[in-house]
Amino acid sequence: MTHQAPVLDLVLAHIDATRAPAHGRLFDFLRIPSISAQPAHAGDCRRAAAWAADHLRGSGFTARILETNGHPVVVADHPGSGAGPHLLYYGHYDVQPPEPLELWTSPAFEPTLVDGPHGKRVVARGAVDDKGQVAMWLEAFRAWHDVAGGVPCRITVLLEGEEEVGTANLLPFLHAHKDALRADAAVISDTGMWDIDTPAITTRLRGIVYTEVTLQAARRDLHSGIYGGSALNPINALTRMLGGLHDDDGRVMLDGFYDGVAPLSAVEAGQWEGLGFDETAFLGGIGLGVPVGERGLPGLHRLWARPTADINGIWGGYAGDGPKTVIAAEAGAKVSFRLVPGQDPERVFAAFEAFVAARTPADARVTVKKFSADPAIEVPLDNALVGAARAALQDEYGRAPVLIGCGGSIPVVEALHSILGLDTLLMGFGLDDDQVHSPNEKFEVRCLDHGTRAHARLLARLAA
Amino acid sequence: MTHQAPVLDLVLAHIDATRAPAHGRLFDFLRIPSISAQPAHAGDCRRAAAWAADHLRGSGFTARILETNGHPVVVADHPGSGAGPHLLYYGHYDVQPPEPLELWTSPAFEPTLVDGPHGKRVVARGAVDDKGQVAMWLEAFRAWHDVAGGVPCRITVLLEGEEEVGTANLLPFLHAHKDALRADAAVISDTGMWDIDTPAITTRLRGIVYTEVTLQAARRDLHSGIYGGSALNPINALTRMLGGLHDDDGRVMLDGFYDGVAPLSAVEAGQWEGLGFDETAFLGGIGLGVPVGERGLPGLHRLWARPTADINGIWGGYAGDGPKTVIAAEAGAKVSFRLVPGQDPERVFAAFEAFVAARTPADARVTVKKFSADPAIEVPLDNALVGAARAALQDEYGRAPVLIGCGGSIPVVEALHSILGLDTLLMGFGLDDDQVHSPNEKFEVRCLDHGTRAHARLLARLAA
Repeated sequence: MTHQAPVLDLVLAHIDATRAPAHGRLFDFLRIPSISAQPAHAGDCRRAAAWAADHLRGSGFTARILETNGHPVVVADHPGSGAGPHLLYYGHYDVQPPEPLELWTSPAFEPTLVDGPHGKRVVARGAVDDKGQVAMWLEAFRAWHDVAGGVPCRITVLLEGEEEVGTANLLPFLHAHKDALRADAAVISDTGMWDIDTPAITTRLRGIVYTEVTLQAARRDLHSGIYGGSALNPINALTRMLGGLHDDDGRVMLDGFYDGVAPLSAVEAGQWEGLGFDETAFLGGIGLGVPVGERGLPGLHRLWARPTADINGIWGGYAGDGPKTVIAAEAGAKVSFRLVPGQDPERVFAAFEAFVAARTPADARVTVKKFSADPAIEVPLDNALVGAARAALQDEYGRAPVLIGCGGSIPVVEALHSILGLDTLLMGFGLDDDQVHSPNEKFEVRCLDHGTRAHARLLARLAA
Repeated sequence: MTHQAPVLDLVLAHIDATRAPAHGRLFDFLRIPSISAQPAHAGDCRRAAAWAADHLRGSGFTARILETNGHPVVVADHPGSGAGPHLLYYGHYDVQPPEPLELWTSPAFEPTLVDGPHGKRVVARGAVDDKGQVAMWLEAFRAWHDVAGGVPCRITVLLEGEEEVGTANLLPFLHAHKDALRADAAVISDTGMWDIDTPAITTRLRGIVYTEVTLQAARRDLHSGIYGGSALNPINALTRMLGGLHDDDGRVMLDGFYDGVAPLSAVEAGQWEGLGFDETAFLGGIGLGVPVGERGLPGLHRLWARPTADINGIWGGYAGDGPKTVIAAEAGAKVSFRLVPGQDPERVFAAFEAFVAARTPADARVTVKKFSADPAIEVPLDNALVGAARAALQDEYGRAPVLIGCGGSIPVVEALHSILGLDTLLMGFGLDDDQVHSPNEKFEVRCLDHGTRAHARLLARLAA
């Protein structure tokens, strides 16, 4: 332990003693339906930003709400009191759409405490992604402020409102505010633990290319009896096109899709094997039993180290009750690709455009939109920040954290590196069954409370 | 002309003199949103049945509204005064769903007169399919009643409310009411003219098998980052399955799909060739230019004499604004097959079930529903009713009607034959551009008025 230990003990005791008001503040945050994808919720996004800025001001930060072409960004600063590195904490206040609403057991934006196998859990859209995880470090700052008069390192906070829609406006923002965002390293809590008892640091993230393809045929819906056999059916054409995305072995069929993908290193492969991942149990938790993806590869390789293609939504024609003998005028789909290190997102998008163009019938007008194109990243393990985090998690949990991958994307990690020159510590407290992006998203209160304490400990370790 | 001619002349003059109230009655009928596919409109279906029964009573019919397991059926009778055959007039008072509503230029259930190249047209859901076509013979009956005290043949009317959802409840109804529905032949107006100046009698109808396939995978929506590469994506699986419905030559890939399909007779092929069908113009009218369907066949063969497969609707995952990185729990599609004489609908459905089963991934639960399974039919040309209709149309239009096929289905024609032993005259007045089943469905007032007169003439010809 360090000379900060006595203060840290007081900070931790304060966190424990003020759990109720801290949870109440998180609930207030969760009640704001800050759905970045839906224009009708633009005002709620702004409210969520203002809420977070106020929270930070209450912990001694100067906080500003800065405009972008989309939802605003919160930037806050605290000079800190110690000799540690200057840290940039990144998080996002926006959330995914809650649909389908009828599958929620409680309203998506009325956080509800529910009993689970690990004690209480908070059920709400954003409970873990990312409001609950942001709340952990907000409350760690608050505790340091209340007990010690301020955080023990210089800290800058960057809280955006467009993570769930591809972070597009943040990139010009980072360029425009390079000076205000100068720091030594970044900290993000938007990842998971290995399990409820085993903390983790994420060192590998997949990238993503997210697209929407639309096929338009006749200029109106047609009667399938009158026109069937002569007029182009855009749903027939779309399924024929997208049905060819994979071969029989689960490999993605875009030209050059696997170009540059390096085989997993022996070190990583060995470490992951040591995790004893039980894919049958992983899938069993969601009612499935047979893995898909590339034939012949171990589960964690498919989840963390291999690229994928998924159709995230599809629509066209009549989807109501009963039959309707219609040939639709238009059909469309959302199609995304998870990428691994070595793949170039722009080349993948171009390959998808070419794939679509090659399969577009003569009479169709096709549109391919690009919502995001972000590369995968690997986080270097040999820096002081990762070392401090490993120690802080060891202290909090009494066991060493594991180093894991993540199949999801946090595009900002690449942007923080390329634009601001920062490496990022990914220390998160989610669990696999948190139902991220699904109905009944939840965050375990045990994860929330330990996470807050671990963040408080990390600051002590770095200030030492 | 016959000895009925003087009365017929009075009937025709009466039809011409009472166009305004007749059109007003049709508008009242069209204002009832009798959408059979949507349970919320069950009451409107009942209202439409009652409206039609009242209309018939006003023309001297006894009319009853009889229950089924679905929407009710109107049965009406008039003893007639002549020596002609006993005719069964069949029609349907139900309509297709009006969606997508935003594409209508006027409300779907507020009939609106709009100027077109052939004069005024009525725009409304059901304008031509089938309320407007039913209104023609209702008004012909009314004119005979007003002028001559009653129709000149014995007539039974059968008006159902489930034609747009597959007519399932009508079949047991026909069995149960065989005696009440006894007649010599049937008359249906639910088909088209060749063009605005050329009347037609339809002698060939395609059948239909209409299905819905649903694939369920995980028991909830999943984050595509966390689960992508391991968990089954039902939209990927569905597109892969349905993308294989056709081969590169446009042939349907169900096992045995073409079993029993006879080549078109030389007589029919020659007659159709004589129609000078311009497929480029046909498709140009809906903004298309390149025919699909089986490679190498003439357009009318593909439209009238060859079977098809069309996906009428597809759904799954996120279809809202922006991106959502979700793997859906479920996906589904409506898939229908147009059949020609010689194909067995039940065998086609079984082949589709087998097609689906062979392509269902291990982890998916699949459901295949059958909404309808009706064979194609050919109408015999050598009976007196068809002869009378040809003469009536010749009288009304001053030119001989053409004998055509129709790509759509009127499943009741097969049922009237197999259950009641009736051949059917298909004499209809729709046009190809009537936007049947689409937004802005319309019926030309010129077609409506001539059709009413032609129906009045047909009765005179038969009573002679």
